[in-house]
Amino acid sequence: MRILVVNPNTTESMTAAIGEACRAVAANDTEVTAINPAWGPPSIETYAEDHVAAAAMLQTIAEHRGDYDAFVIACAGDPGLHAARQITDAPVIGIAEAAMHMACLVAHRFSIVTVIDSVIPMLRDMVALAGMSQRCASIRATSLSVLEIEQDFAHAERVLVEESRRAVDEDGAEAIVLGCAGMGPLDKRLQDELGVPVLDGCGCAVTLAEACHRYGITTSKAGAYAMAPGRLARLGIPAG
Amino acid sequence: MRILVVNPNTTESMTAAIGEACRAVAANDTEVTAINPAWGPPSIETYAEDHVAAAAMLQTIAEHRGDYDAFVIACAGDPGLHAARQITDAPVIGIAEAAMHMACLVAHRFSIVTVIDSVIPMLRDMVALAGMSQRCASIRATSLSVLEIEQDFAHAERVLVEESRRAVDEDGAEAIVLGCAGMGPLDKRLQDELGVPVLDGCGCAVTLAEACHRYGITTSKAGAYAMAPGRLARLGIPAG
Amino acid sequence: MRILVVNPNTTESMTAAIGEACRAVAANDTEVTAINPAWGPPSIETYAEDHVAAAAMLQTIAEHRGDYDAFVIACAGDPGLHAARQITDAPVIGIAEAAMHMACLVAHRFSIVTVIDSVIPMLRDMVALAGMSQRCASIRATSLSVLEIEQDFAHAERVLVEESRRAVDEDGAEAIVLGCAGMGPLDKRLQDELGVPVLDGCGCAVTLAEACHRYGITTSKAGAYAMAPGRLARLGIPAG
Amino acid sequence: MRILVVNPNTTESMTAAIGEACRAVAANDTEVTAINPAWGPPSIETYAEDHVAAAAMLQTIAEHRGDYDAFVIACAGDPGLHAARQITDAPVIGIAEAAMHMACLVAHRFSIVTVIDSVIPMLRDMVALAGMSQRCASIRATSLSVLEIEQDFAHAERVLVEESRRAVDEDGAEAIVLGCAGMGPLDKRLQDELGVPVLDGCGCAVTLAEACHRYGITTSKAGAYAMAPGRLARLGIPAG
Amino acid sequence: MRILVVNPNTTESMTAAIGEACRAVAANDTEVTAINPAWGPPSIETYAEDHVAAAAMLQTIAEHRGDYDAFVIACAGDPGLHAARQITDAPVIGIAEAAMHMACLVAHRFSIVTVIDSVIPMLRDMVALAGMSQRCASIRATSLSVLEIEQDFAHAERVLVEESRRAVDEDGAEAIVLGCAGMGPLDKRLQDELGVPVLDGCGCAVTLAEACHRYGITTSKAGAYAMAPGRLARLGIPAG
Amino acid sequence: MRILVVNPNTTESMTAAIGEACRAVAANDTEVTAINPAWGPPSIETYAEDHVAAAAMLQTIAEHRGDYDAFVIACAGDPGLHAARQITDAPVIGIAEAAMHMACLVAHRFSIVTVIDSVIPMLRDMVALAGMSQRCASIRATSLSVLEIEQDFAHAERVLVEESRRAVDEDGAEAIVLGCAGMGPLDKRLQDELGVPVLDGCGCAVTLAEACHRYGITTSKAGAYAMAPGRLARLGIPAG
Repeated sequence: MRILVVNPNTTESMTAAIGEACRAVAANDTEVTAINPAWGPPSIETYAEDHVAAAAMLQTIAEHRGDYDAFVIACAGDPGLHAARQITDAPVIGIAEAAMHMACLVAHRFSIVTVIDSVIPMLRDMVALAGMSQRCASIRATSLSVLEIEQDFAHAERVLVEESRRAVDEDGAEAIVLGCAGMGPLDKRLQDELGVPVLDGCGCAVTLAEACHRYGITTSKAGAYAMAPGRLARLGIPAG
Repeated sequence: MRILVVNPNTTESMTAAIGEACRAVAANDTEVTAINPAWGPPSIETYAEDHVAAAAMLQTIAEHRGDYDAFVIACAGDPGLHAARQITDAPVIGIAEAAMHMACLVAHRFSIVTVIDSVIPMLRDMVALAGMSQRCASIRATSLSVLEIEQDFAHAERVLVEESRRAVDEDGAEAIVLGCAGMGPLDKRLQDELGVPVLDGCGCAVTLAEACHRYGITTSKAGAYAMAPGRLARLGIPAG
Repeated sequence: MRILVVNPNTTESMTAAIGEACRAVAANDTEVTAINPAWGPPSIETYAEDHVAAAAMLQTIAEHRGDYDAFVIACAGDPGLHAARQITDAPVIGIAEAAMHMACLVAHRFSIVTVIDSVIPMLRDMVALAGMSQRCASIRATSLSVLEIEQDFAHAERVLVEESRRAVDEDGAEAIVLGCAGMGPLDKRLQDELGVPVLDGCGCAVTLAEACHRYGITTSKAGAYAMAPGRLARLGIPAG
Repeated sequence: MRILVVNPNTTESMTAAIGEACRAVAANDTEVTAINPAWGPPSIETYAEDHVAAAAMLQTIAEHRGDYDAFVIACAGDPGLHAARQITDAPVIGIAEAAMHMACLVAHRFSIVTVIDSVIPMLRDMVALAGMSQRCASIRATSLSVLEIEQDFAHAERVLVEESRRAVDEDGAEAIVLGCAGMGPLDKRLQDELGVPVLDGCGCAVTLAEACHRYGITTSKAGAYAMAPGRLARLGIPAG
Repeated sequence: MRILVVNPNTTESMTAAIGEACRAVAANDTEVTAINPAWGPPSIETYAEDHVAAAAMLQTIAEHRGDYDAFVIACAGDPGLHAARQITDAPVIGIAEAAMHMACLVAHRFSIVTVIDSVIPMLRDMVALAGMSQRCASIRATSLSVLEIEQDFAHAERVLVEESRRAVDEDGAEAIVLGCAGMGPLDKRLQDELGVPVLDGCGCAVTLAEACHRYGITTSKAGAYAMAPGRLARLGIPAG
Repeated sequence: MRILVVNPNTTESMTAAIGEACRAVAANDTEVTAINPAWGPPSIETYAEDHVAAAAMLQTIAEHRGDYDAFVIACAGDPGLHAARQITDAPVIGIAEAAMHMACLVAHRFSIVTVIDSVIPMLRDMVALAGMSQRCASIRATSLSVLEIEQDFAHAERVLVEESRRAVDEDGAEAIVLGCAGMGPLDKRLQDELGVPVLDGCGCAVTLAEACHRYGITTSKAGAYAMAPGRLARLGIPAG
């Protein structure tokens, strides 16, 4: 099968790292392509950036809508997830939702450990709308910005271990969901250190896209994700 | 005071009607300007349209951010509301939130009567995130599309009366929130026919913007609505 | 328009201060009258006092029901709010509800900072019934009793700044709702010190009463607030 | 033990019937006295009546606070329940709460079948604050007013059977909570006809008061129900 | 009346102590028999033990289903409660549910103080399904295992006082529900030391079983607790 | 990888059909073994049957705990799910949870269409504890018993299409979760007829087990699913 992984921000080094992380998990017969929009913010840590990136990402998905068996949105706030499902019939998996669903299979409660604290209200909204509030022990911010992570992975690892330990010890977390696509390359190292499941949404989303494909389900067009023919053409997203 | 009312869709006749409805309610010393973005969809009835319109609207607000005492987002899904509050210090009032808060002052429970049923999941999400689920008796769709309303107001009125009566009789609604900015001009006629408060978010938002201004509060920058200096410049919204 | 502000307790100095605070916010053409019942408790810090004051306040509103365009209940537990709406067709605004609705326009989450801790369960019930639990970050008590506040405003200010800072720093509050009508005169000083919106329900309620009046809505009589003609006469409230 | 059952309305024939129903259930060594306040409304079907009756009932309980081992509030909205618990150390049992707790012991979900539909919002608030929303399948109104019930018990029985059947068949109720103290005398006849548990709060409250007494617990004074010495004297309830 | 108290674990000394505690509270004309299954775990501190003990307990209740007027399940997780209600028409009272319902009559919020922390997720599930989450201030574990309690009651008392004080002081608990049947004998000593109601579910369950019996209600067979004739015979529980 | 699929009831023809359905979805290098316990009920439609089957299934999993990479519990109520996770380190996937998580990836809301109505309260509890109430539009029963389904698949198909259509048209379901393992063989036929995703938990669980295995996560032992060494030996499940 063919999966298009869209990093909604415009930082190409991050897109490359995300693609690599996804390919490391994908099955042999799964082909993973990772891209990012031509315009929009270089990282997503505010509502405003989330909304602009969502619009740019919709354009990217619309351009490729007939070419892939599934799409992955590679940002931990799942920007534009419901809208993307209106644009294509193929499954669209957000990495936040993916990691949370997978976490529920191996833990009673999980915590999200994420970047700077400005993203907490956005993530809290996202968790609530996904219906996951009851399974989410806490959302914990760190001192890391999205773009700092890949500049010093060793530092990021130390910070994430420390905050994740607090989630386990103080909040009752039994698994850790990584709250930024950029943290993905650290998942197995963190899991080894912490002794609890650590979930990178990118890896989870790829395996869930494969699961949907193998089991034979595509996005429902019966309600929230219906979009009348012709509406795509009038969305009016600029060329960027 | 000066209020900028932004219709997030690109239908200029609708922008003009919204401006008129707002001015009819505004105090004598309130100056209301109504505009719409240069790009984006002509109406908003899907998640995809909501997201694109939100990005376009953010650009519009960013351009005018120092020029007004308050901003109103004139679309019944409150697209981009939280993001807009990050871009300016002035109060930003969404018409959905405005009508719901005002409805709570005169009714124990309200219903939203809106356009075609594709908007129901979006409105349900919006109501839940606003914390209003408990006060919302129902969300009822009609056969009306956004753009049809102003083409035949008499027809729209008949349809809205009929559906609102069902909300009152079957769902226990005590007030009706109009679920589309285009329905605003009908609010008082509907209220007379139905005998319960009928709330157009545009009128509500203007009076609430005035209330914030008179009482002396502006958008909090302590948490969800903070945005570091410099981030606005890197949002990357295209010129359209 | 004419607004009757009812302080439900019998402390006349407090009634006078509340009236002054309301007039400071009211529009030029709004006439504000502040009164209190002839009987009942001198302050409201228990369920028992809340209930007795509610009955006394209902009598006061019943006596003046045809004479005002709106009523304000000036106690931070909104005693008798729903009952008062049954007695008159004019809008009735409780100051707790008023401050919470206004806070939602400028903040994602607010905290209530109030008097002694015996009021916390009452306020928690009130917040839940208003549907505001999701928007309320915390309710924090202080060492201040209702009647001590006006005896030493400087002391009250110091205590309120300290507790409000904890709400912002530890609970994620982005705005502060003052949990006692007697704290109203301090709202702008606190706002200056704290750097987040600080909301006195009295000021908020006056501007919301004006908003209802200007927009043209009155209390719904379709459900919870209906009361058959003749029932008012048989309420049986004693003369006091 | 000695139980004081307070009918919060002033209809003495109803007080007598309630007393009889309570004594029919009470243990041999339990002495039941039934009284009503000297002032207030003759029946309780609105928020306004609820609040006035609550104040009057508090006065009644305050007068007898040292004389009984437990108190029962015999009105299906539990008016003034929390306040009454502040006034005395003895257990205070509301009949709504009593019937709901007992229903949970024999049914997964119950419905409340009550008088005219104006009481539904009050009962919904009461159920929510008691934490029982999840166990309550529905609240169903009838054509019966409080005072009509005892005028024609045969008619009331027919109406209640019909509405209760709908609750069982359409709402999934497994037990019926009678939503008015005046319906108490019909409980066993209804139970026989319906084939599901039917709960009169008066009977339930008496047995629960006995259970508290036998087990040896009294009202907690650690939080919500604390009241400082001296506050009772300054409540200011008029003599009526 | 005759009550069968089933201790779902196989520790006979604990069964004897539970029987004694129940008889101490029972009315003169109540006959209490305490037994435990012939097989299953010696204590219940994991989901796995809960499920095995539930199956064994069902067999015990099935054997005695015609012989008693009520059944009590004497384990603080209420294992098999709903299933037991399918097997017999007589009321079946779980001690956790019993203590929580009784606590609601004398406190606005209670905390559960229990054994080792592995039981917290199970108790949190149980509280949620009982609809009690809103009334439950916290669930606090201690260092005590089920079987250690009766080996050193003085030590258990010290540990429970300490943890209960934290629940009252830090979590706002107004009453303490003992989270293990083995703690029952300490209830009155703890209540004296703490000054708030302390509830042993065994005592509560016995008085509630008597209340159901006296008031005349048995388990509803209209929904969740129905079981077709013949199904009991095909349950397939082994002889053990 | 090796997956053990446990049908918790004792009907071997059903076990065989479940095994076939699972193998049809499994990857080439996945080996699926399907078994059922030696004792317990032939089908699970009551709480009592659920509990007995759970105990029997725990014994089965305990016997094979070191031999498989993942376990699937093939009954739509997920009996014993949390307990099974305590017994083994390998992922344990319940088919109800599996289908619900997968449904969330392709639909905003799903409905469960199941067997006879006695299972509805159990499924409602299961949905609530899984945190899925918000995503579940309805649970609809049919006239089908578990054992009737495989006796007349054509009849079952007609009944399921009809009830599923009601879920889509009346309840707003966008996907259908099949509420019995025996319905699995019909999933693709139903999906073709209904035009919305139809999810058999067996197929979903196998792909999710593969996803966990490929991504490299196993059951967390940090909280709810911890079990001290030695406790397995003292569970006391009889040989059957």
